[in-house]
Amino acid sequence: MASTGSRSTNITWHEGHVTRPDRERILGQRGVTIWLTGLSGSGKSTIAVAVEGELVRRGHAAYVLDGDNVRHGLNKNLGFSPEDRTENIRRIGEVAKLFTDAGLIVLTSFISPYRTDRDAVRALMAPGDFVEAYVSASLETCESRDVKGLYAKARAGQIPEFTGISAPYEAPEKPEIVLDTNRQDVAASVAQVVAYLEREGHLHAPSTEASARG
Amino acid sequence: MASTGSRSTNITWHEGHVTRPDRERILGQRGVTIWLTGLSGSGKSTIAVAVEGELVRRGHAAYVLDGDNVRHGLNKNLGFSPEDRTENIRRIGEVAKLFTDAGLIVLTSFISPYRTDRDAVRALMAPGDFVEAYVSASLETCESRDVKGLYAKARAGQIPEFTGISAPYEAPEKPEIVLDTNRQDVAASVAQVVAYLEREGHLHAPSTEASARG
Repeated sequence: MASTGSRSTNITWHEGHVTRPDRERILGQRGVTIWLTGLSGSGKSTIAVAVEGELVRRGHAAYVLDGDNVRHGLNKNLGFSPEDRTENIRRIGEVAKLFTDAGLIVLTSFISPYRTDRDAVRALMAPGDFVEAYVSASLETCESRDVKGLYAKARAGQIPEFTGISAPYEAPEKPEIVLDTNRQDVAASVAQVVAYLEREGHLHAPSTEASARG
Repeated sequence: MASTGSRSTNITWHEGHVTRPDRERILGQRGVTIWLTGLSGSGKSTIAVAVEGELVRRGHAAYVLDGDNVRHGLNKNLGFSPEDRTENIRRIGEVAKLFTDAGLIVLTSFISPYRTDRDAVRALMAPGDFVEAYVSASLETCESRDVKGLYAKARAGQIPEFTGISAPYEAPEKPEIVLDTNRQDVAASVAQVVAYLEREGHLHAPSTEASARG
């Protein structure tokens, strides 16, 4: 049996609805969405999973939303038309918002190539809750990795509207975080994201004053 | 500043993907969805919020999904046609599944009148992850409460297809929990749900053996 750490019983809320800061104090952190965006093969999923691992190792509640648990579930009734791509990102944004409200540190890993779609998610959330992390790698780098063989298929014309080949990728203009995976390894990107979370106060419970304001 | 409880550092997972039991050990609980179903006015939301409060007071990570945070967000592009009602419940089920996978104790508060829709959500989840809680109150009781004045409007014909008046409510056949709010107060229903969670092991971290199996 793994032992469970003792919990704070110094909870300040009274009768009535639980608030987000109440949940955050239980978790010892402040909820946030780290929205990873970048080309296929840029390293989004690898970084998302590695950050989740580092956070959980430190005792934090983190969760990855990615194609594996979203495209075959919540968004399985969406295709790849422009409208469906926008709806895909919108739903993911709404779910990330709920997780953030629950106090979790959410990492989303989707190409999300369109600026307007990402900005719409940012607009859903309170300032500071949405953190855009641009996973930057050149098309050449991504294509040379081609872990899933998708670029080869796209070049052969077997995948229509493939981001970077036959469909645009609109890089973020003012991302909170840039992870340049041309130049740095996964560990460096993980350290960069964790340092951001630490600096912005997400790895500690909100203060009682913050709660009173919130 | 509220003090934060120390966390377990006795985490057994190794390099690689974080698993659900890893997250559950951090949280000191096992994820589950308590799916509250019942007529408008039966007490679903009151019970959901009160259970969340009790769980958070005990140091657990709990979250309520209800009309307030879902109908105006994730499902704001759905209406009340039969197809949209089914899609509404399907999406909520998929989101509850994600929260459960994240290790949280989720309470959903939706009338969800159709057995097939609820059974479809149950089918999405692993056995034991979906707990149907039938919030049972007679139509007379619900109508006499009529907190939002909806029954009066429905009787006046101002709300078409209102569950219990002009649209059916299909009671669960084998719910894991029945909360008879004709006979018991909110505190009794909360105690009943918490006792269920305790009995089924959701209020403790999974054992290492369970993790090895999972």
